[in-house]
Amino acid sequence: MKCRKCGKPAVINMRHHKLALCADHFIEWFVRQTERTIEKYRMFTRDSRILVAVSGGKDSLSLWDVLLELGYKADGLYIDLGIEANDYSKTSHAKIDAFMENHPGARLHVVDIKATYGESIPEVAMRVRRGRGKPCSVCGIVKRHEMNRIAIEGGYDVLATGHNLDDEVAVLFLNTLHWQTGYLARQAPVLPAENGFAKKVKPLCRFYEREVAAYALVKGIDYIYDECPFAVGAKTIFYKGILNQIEEKSPGAKHQFYLNYVDARRKGKIKFAEDDEEPPEMHPCPKCGQPTTAPGLCTFCRLWESNK
Amino acid sequence: MKCRKCGKPAVINMRHHKLALCADHFIEWFVRQTERTIEKYRMFTRDSRILVAVSGGKDSLSLWDVLLELGYKADGLYIDLGIEANDYSKTSHAKIDAFMENHPGARLHVVDIKATYGESIPEVAMRVRRGRGKPCSVCGIVKRHEMNRIAIEGGYDVLATGHNLDDEVAVLFLNTLHWQTGYLARQAPVLPAENGFAKKVKPLCRFYEREVAAYALVKGIDYIYDECPFAVGAKTIFYKGILNQIEEKSPGAKHQFYLNYVDARRKGKIKFAEDDEEPPEMHPCPKCGQPTTAPGLCTFCRLWESNK
Repeated sequence: MKCRKCGKPAVINMRHHKLALCADHFIEWFVRQTERTIEKYRMFTRDSRILVAVSGGKDSLSLWDVLLELGYKADGLYIDLGIEANDYSKTSHAKIDAFMENHPGARLHVVDIKATYGESIPEVAMRVRRGRGKPCSVCGIVKRHEMNRIAIEGGYDVLATGHNLDDEVAVLFLNTLHWQTGYLARQAPVLPAENGFAKKVKPLCRFYEREVAAYALVKGIDYIYDECPFAVGAKTIFYKGILNQIEEKSPGAKHQFYLNYVDARRKGKIKFAEDDEEPPEMHPCPKCGQPTTAPGLCTFCRLWESNK
Repeated sequence: MKCRKCGKPAVINMRHHKLALCADHFIEWFVRQTERTIEKYRMFTRDSRILVAVSGGKDSLSLWDVLLELGYKADGLYIDLGIEANDYSKTSHAKIDAFMENHPGARLHVVDIKATYGESIPEVAMRVRRGRGKPCSVCGIVKRHEMNRIAIEGGYDVLATGHNLDDEVAVLFLNTLHWQTGYLARQAPVLPAENGFAKKVKPLCRFYEREVAAYALVKGIDYIYDECPFAVGAKTIFYKGILNQIEEKSPGAKHQFYLNYVDARRKGKIKFAEDDEEPPEMHPCPKCGQPTTAPGLCTFCRLWESNK
């Protein structure tokens, strides 16, 4: 297989784009495609201050790398969850430190959950769930709260996450199987800022996972290969397997499924009842000040309150 | 496994309903569920004159049987397509004749395509497609035209077809994978009559294929087991296989996927741009009188015209 641009040996063949490229031309293509996504969905501009949520995985580090490459003002945010199994948090942090060494001038915020709030994610989850089930929902609450806090406190214009096409497709597929119109209504490459919540964007949402992995590989970005030890869920693996079968049968199917959806939504061709609903009334949490629907403490603050 | 109603040995276990039933109670349940579907979606009433499209397969013959059982005024329509491969049309017709013998008083319309229009489906398809591809699209045009013609000429209030849940789910799944909003907008258990087109209903749309097969089996309805020799398509088989994997993983998933969709549509929770579009202007075909969008002959009449 040869690069379509220069005829050198190709490092990747993207069947859905009918495009094989060598290392140099793939990087060029990937960076340009990211810029196009940012512009197409009006994610941010050269003047925006961007906070990139980095986990140490290939997606978030590749995103940060591309944004810096393109000259955007992008700072990182690493949330240390304190997950000791498989040395997960320690290894993640080390990968980000290595990234920083290769990107002099890059700026990183680090939030250590245990140091800041007294318990790691597995510890708080164990306490509030009394040992039952996985800590994933607690982890989601904490991460969303902290990402938003740092974005708002730091005066960032936008919070960027590394979700790739495969991530977005799996979520869209599950929400569609159940026709969860509330969730469907909120699935988009951009969620605008609204009463106290930062604007959220997903600049890699048009890349397959393997394209992002190829970018990290070719650019020599070292990242943590393992998924979070708690995230290894039969459900997601099963549905990603189903989607891979469909993609195998009909290359580009995932791309089409996600982008046709996003496009139809943007053009108003698909509407949900939730689109016209008034957003729920928000109150500032009396403790942290972040917006919450209930009158008392927000869900995040209640997590720690129940420790008293 | 025992019948939940009477404790006798069960003939079927419906995991998604958590319901195992013996032969007698299954038949009672099936008939009652059909009546509920008819009422819930306002398909027709006791006074309606119903035309049931029968192919000789389990779905259409079971539908006709249930409607007669419930005392509805339901006549059959068999369209002889003239498919000689595997004796398909001959066998289909024979199954319907056997059904008629067991249902004295039932009335059947038969349209023999070759006798009426001069060519069988494979013949006309071979001519207009010049031997390329399958006759399925031509067959669809002919069947839709003839079903509508007999329904309108015979003064029927409604045309009923035997589509089961698995059929509807496969179509919905494919249309969703591509977000074909025009097709999605028209997928419903009931399509109202509109300018020259008869009302169309699918009373079995809430039953899994295996439930309809069980009904036919228990009632001793003999039907043609083979699919149409032309319909054996890799695509449909592949996607039905995918959906079966999802159902296996999460029993009731197909039921939920289809019925959540139908429900959300009925409640206006999902809207498509096509919902608000004016229906295209229709002209009566100068030859057959059926409505058509183009000014000249309708698609059906053009099939035969090109033979001149």
